Amino acid sequence: MVSGLTRRAMLEIIEFLTKSLDVISDYDKDRLVETLVEAYKRGSKIFVVGAGRSGLVVKAFALRLMHLGFSVYVMGETIIPRMRKGDVLVALSGSGRTRSVISVAEAAKSVGAIVVSITTFMDSPLAKLSDVVVLIPGRTKLAKEDDYLVRQVIGLHEPLTPLGTLFEDLAMIFLDGVVVELMDKLGVTEEELKERHANVE
Amino acid sequence: MVSGLTRRAMLEIIEFLTKSLDVISDYDKDRLVETLVEAYKRGSKIFVVGAGRSGLVVKAFALRLMHLGFSVYVMGETIIPRMRKGDVLVALSGSGRTRSVISVAEAAKSVGAIVVSITTFMDSPLAKLSDVVVLIPGRTKLAKEDDYLVRQVIGLHEPLTPLGTLFEDLAMIFLDGVVVELMDKLGVTEEELKERHANVE
Amino acid sequence: MVSGLTRRAMLEIIEFLTKSLDVISDYDKDRLVETLVEAYKRGSKIFVVGAGRSGLVVKAFALRLMHLGFSVYVMGETIIPRMRKGDVLVALSGSGRTRSVISVAEAAKSVGAIVVSITTFMDSPLAKLSDVVVLIPGRTKLAKEDDYLVRQVIGLHEPLTPLGTLFEDLAMIFLDGVVVELMDKLGVTEEELKERHANVE
Amino acid sequence: MVSGLTRRAMLEIIEFLTKSLDVISDYDKDRLVETLVEAYKRGSKIFVVGAGRSGLVVKAFALRLMHLGFSVYVMGETIIPRMRKGDVLVALSGSGRTRSVISVAEAAKSVGAIVVSITTFMDSPLAKLSDVVVLIPGRTKLAKEDDYLVRQVIGLHEPLTPLGTLFEDLAMIFLDGVVVELMDKLGVTEEELKERHANVE
Repeated sequence: MVSGLTRRAMLEIIEFLTKSLDVISDYDKDRLVETLVEAYKRGSKIFVVGAGRSGLVVKAFALRLMHLGFSVYVMGETIIPRMRKGDVLVALSGSGRTRSVISVAEAAKSVGAIVVSITTFMDSPLAKLSDVVVLIPGRTKLAKEDDYLVRQVIGLHEPLTPLGTLFEDLAMIFLDGVVVELMDKLGVTEEELKERHANVE
Repeated sequence: MVSGLTRRAMLEIIEFLTKSLDVISDYDKDRLVETLVEAYKRGSKIFVVGAGRSGLVVKAFALRLMHLGFSVYVMGETIIPRMRKGDVLVALSGSGRTRSVISVAEAAKSVGAIVVSITTFMDSPLAKLSDVVVLIPGRTKLAKEDDYLVRQVIGLHEPLTPLGTLFEDLAMIFLDGVVVELMDKLGVTEEELKERHANVE
Repeated sequence: MVSGLTRRAMLEIIEFLTKSLDVISDYDKDRLVETLVEAYKRGSKIFVVGAGRSGLVVKAFALRLMHLGFSVYVMGETIIPRMRKGDVLVALSGSGRTRSVISVAEAAKSVGAIVVSITTFMDSPLAKLSDVVVLIPGRTKLAKEDDYLVRQVIGLHEPLTPLGTLFEDLAMIFLDGVVVELMDKLGVTEEELKERHANVE
Repeated sequence: MVSGLTRRAMLEIIEFLTKSLDVISDYDKDRLVETLVEAYKRGSKIFVVGAGRSGLVVKAFALRLMHLGFSVYVMGETIIPRMRKGDVLVALSGSGRTRSVISVAEAAKSVGAIVVSITTFMDSPLAKLSDVVVLIPGRTKLAKEDDYLVRQVIGLHEPLTPLGTLFEDLAMIFLDGVVVELMDKLGVTEEELKERHANVE
């Protein structure tokens, strides 16, 4: 049995994840799922972008999208094709203010791509320019001095975990939930995912 | 309120995380923490390695180690210095059989580095060559036909989430818990983490 | 006009590149080109692998292959699909002894992929297990104490540039030459390359 | 002896490299070297940024800077610390118009970092905001319709190599020349570089 601060922090994260289930909007989630399913059906490409730990979480989602049969690309890695009208950019940023993410989202809009953002702040620059916004709660670092924002709905006033941890962990779990819904919507079995999984790694 | 399969899958993950708290050994966790704290104190470097989604999770841990003040490097990225005696390699692999991870772990051993592995399988090649093993439960893909192993202790016989999802999510949350314990052990405040956080991204 | 050691080193590299034109075998180059053209025609995927600066050079080649219309993937990055019989692995390693590269090449062989290696040493482990070997000259670091090998054919006994620089630069220029030959063989125009070039970056 | 289009293209690149020696300004090169040497002496960090193949070339330079003893970080990879006043950002972009590169350069300026750019266009947005500009010739893709620009000084009107190849190859060789000058200025021997080279890869 794991104990000490590690356990306390894990319990806090788990409590946050659980409460978040009632805060994330089904409408947002459905639009995310639909946008991806439609892109899949018309053969559009998916691009993902995020900085730091958010970037790692959105890459984990991208890998599952590939397993699901999507053509998916990670901004900042080597193989990046031309983005075209109808392609989808999935952008993950807790604050919605990460400069490089906004820059990519703006460029994506300018070529007619659909921008889906996953963020805590509806009034952030990223959310404002997005076609689809999935709001997920999170204490998150902001660019300004006022610094941290703890979502009242969550009621966590002094989390043990530092910086954007709660947002990043929730984004990971939420997107893993979305993967299951996508499997169902696309009629893809786990066997098929496994069949696309890297065998040389 | 999020509903549908996304909610069901998230609940399943959360249940798995919760039950895992009682399965992960405090002894394992303490040795991981001690190994890192000692490396920190003697100024040794930390290297991390993992493939696929496990690689992304261990990178997320690496980034927090950097925020904590460690000198940390990600195998496979550009800037990789010489590994020396006393440096620590943190290897993450559910199956403990990922070829590239084992190859790096073997090379690390040969230069006198300390290998810490986080895996589901005590009798895996990775675990066997490691100095410290943290066993965390997980259904995980294996290289063989027998294919999936669901840990009895968890009692999840047919998880909704595909492939290594449960392992990867648990590794993410567990290591985020460990970060909180490291903050305490090293006397590092969140302000200090924030001070080391990227400001250009 | 650039002068000083920078100029002298650049002149040395240029002389090395020029002399290498007469050392690289047309037979090797033709087999590389054919292997890629055949993979293209049957719709097989290309994977590339290399460590350190060699890894960066082979990624630069991979990006051009994508511009040419190949389905190409970089080992170690996020999106890695299953490797299948008939897929091609292009491995770049001056010494032919880089552990992680050999490990990937072995795994590729085991799934029926065609391994093409670009290396200085015909008797290296990498060359020995490859289906196609392109030998390109290079002073290159070895794992052993004996350390450096300067190819007599080149006659550069004490190059100014350190470590594997000559090999890496030659590999870059050689593969950029191969790209031009591939454009011709596949009947792909520069306009078509440009049409596939990233527009969001 | 390599022949065919591969040889012709390599000869073209080599001719371009050779002619460029007389076009690159010693003043620019000296300022680049001085800026790096001064950063080294005061213990400032170096960050590098570039997109696509230019990004790969600047990473190859970054790796050598690490071998030389610099603390160096690659924008877009996992481990990115806070950028501080006096740190140096080396930005590589042929057109000087790559959005993500400009965005990072602007952010770097705003925190007091020194921006060094390597580009073909003195009047590009990147060059304009840089503290040090190294102009190196190159046919290079532009964001506008007018499309390609062949430097008159070079006199290559219809190069065989596509897109930014000449710029990228020249940047690689030029920066490898600069490494030799840095070794001399910093009194670092090849043995010391080798001593910092990755031994686990």
